[in-house]
Amino acid sequence: MNLILLSLAEIADHGRVLVSDARAVHLRAVLKVLPGDAVRVGVIDGAFGVGTVVAVTPEQVELRCAFDWEVPTRPRVDLLLALPRPKVMRRLWAQLAALGVGQVILTNAEKVERDYFDSHVLQDAGYRPLLIEGLQQARDTRLPVVSIHKRFKVLVEDDLDALCPHMRRIVAHPGGETSIARALSTAGESERVLVAIGPEGGWNDFELDLLDAHGFTRVGMGPRTLATTTACIALLTLVHEALRNDE
Amino acid sequence: MNLILLSLAEIADHGRVLVSDARAVHLRAVLKVLPGDAVRVGVIDGAFGVGTVVAVTPEQVELRCAFDWEVPTRPRVDLLLALPRPKVMRRLWAQLAALGVGQVILTNAEKVERDYFDSHVLQDAGYRPLLIEGLQQARDTRLPVVSIHKRFKVLVEDDLDALCPHMRRIVAHPGGETSIARALSTAGESERVLVAIGPEGGWNDFELDLLDAHGFTRVGMGPRTLATTTACIALLTLVHEALRNDE
Repeated sequence: MNLILLSLAEIADHGRVLVSDARAVHLRAVLKVLPGDAVRVGVIDGAFGVGTVVAVTPEQVELRCAFDWEVPTRPRVDLLLALPRPKVMRRLWAQLAALGVGQVILTNAEKVERDYFDSHVLQDAGYRPLLIEGLQQARDTRLPVVSIHKRFKVLVEDDLDALCPHMRRIVAHPGGETSIARALSTAGESERVLVAIGPEGGWNDFELDLLDAHGFTRVGMGPRTLATTTACIALLTLVHEALRNDE
Repeated sequence: MNLILLSLAEIADHGRVLVSDARAVHLRAVLKVLPGDAVRVGVIDGAFGVGTVVAVTPEQVELRCAFDWEVPTRPRVDLLLALPRPKVMRRLWAQLAALGVGQVILTNAEKVERDYFDSHVLQDAGYRPLLIEGLQQARDTRLPVVSIHKRFKVLVEDDLDALCPHMRRIVAHPGGETSIARALSTAGESERVLVAIGPEGGWNDFELDLLDAHGFTRVGMGPRTLATTTACIALLTLVHEALRNDE
């Protein structure tokens, strides 16, 4: 936990905050804070700041927080992901938030099993704490926006332009010959990028054709076939690196 | 499982192999093979080949295999990793093998807890099946060579030159200003790269100085602090990408 994230509702007058969950345990047991110490804080989807420890009790830690004016910008990368198994998705949330994504758009595909959509990890109460965990790890305040789509065709044809207007679009595909760096070398300075990652068995031909028809460039990541978690991390890393070199 | 990996000892005369564990389940339940079908096979640390299904019974699958002459080259990247928690390490093995590493060198550091070294996941019988799982995912035959070192100073001062002769060495460090691509831009065409990744709390000053003194260039991966698993995957991805662009 490299940042204590607070929700707006937790902040009382004069920046006073009472923290009483895993964050309090972290402050007490790991950081071993004492009154007067300063810790890094942030508001979910808001600014960073400094929290000065006022009091520490066995149940809670009281902070008095002062915040910056500026709110960090949302990561420039959005992810369109064919929903993986719930066990995989559960582990992925924090990692996605840590790597930095603006939106997580989860979709059905032929090789996604229908009952994956019934999982607790797709409910706000299931994934929100995991996203916050990732943000606290990576020291970011911008909570990824999540949407879940059970019909791939409707998503791509009808909804994607509204969700992701004017974005550079790429899809990872084995045998894709364009590298990510090359595909993004002409991206505008603040242009956002939408990255599509298929299910374990890959997109089927219909799905790939639909993505092609809606502006996705096929990119490759070398000869090795990676499992979903590893592929997501690898791909997001390469996109961020390409955009960083671009700046 | 994109490849069925066999050990040399399993291959009888005329390439005959009886497969009876998770690989047999995969062949029967996922690939649904029938006699006459061909499947991709490989020998651990050896060549790829084709296995023709001879017979399928509820207990086992009989293959007759023919192998290539050429053995794939070992991945050009080695990893020096401060031992993470056993739970993290258990999940990491397959991912490391899938991404491609020649050697995994596990080390102690100030912020590594001593009892991590007692874990079952550091025994050959614990990690070997996980490494093989990763190779079968990524379609590689080269099993990473694993060594475990309880004394960081002895490792770096006395053992590293023998383990990793003539290698480009980099260490990931927050605030490192050189990008990985830049640090490796002058790497020779077949030069190997050793990547060091510290514990969750980072290397201490003594450890960083020792790495500096032994030829490690500090590299950065941007402003976000990543957990060990995510950092390993991200870093290995960037190194492989830098070496690929180099070729």
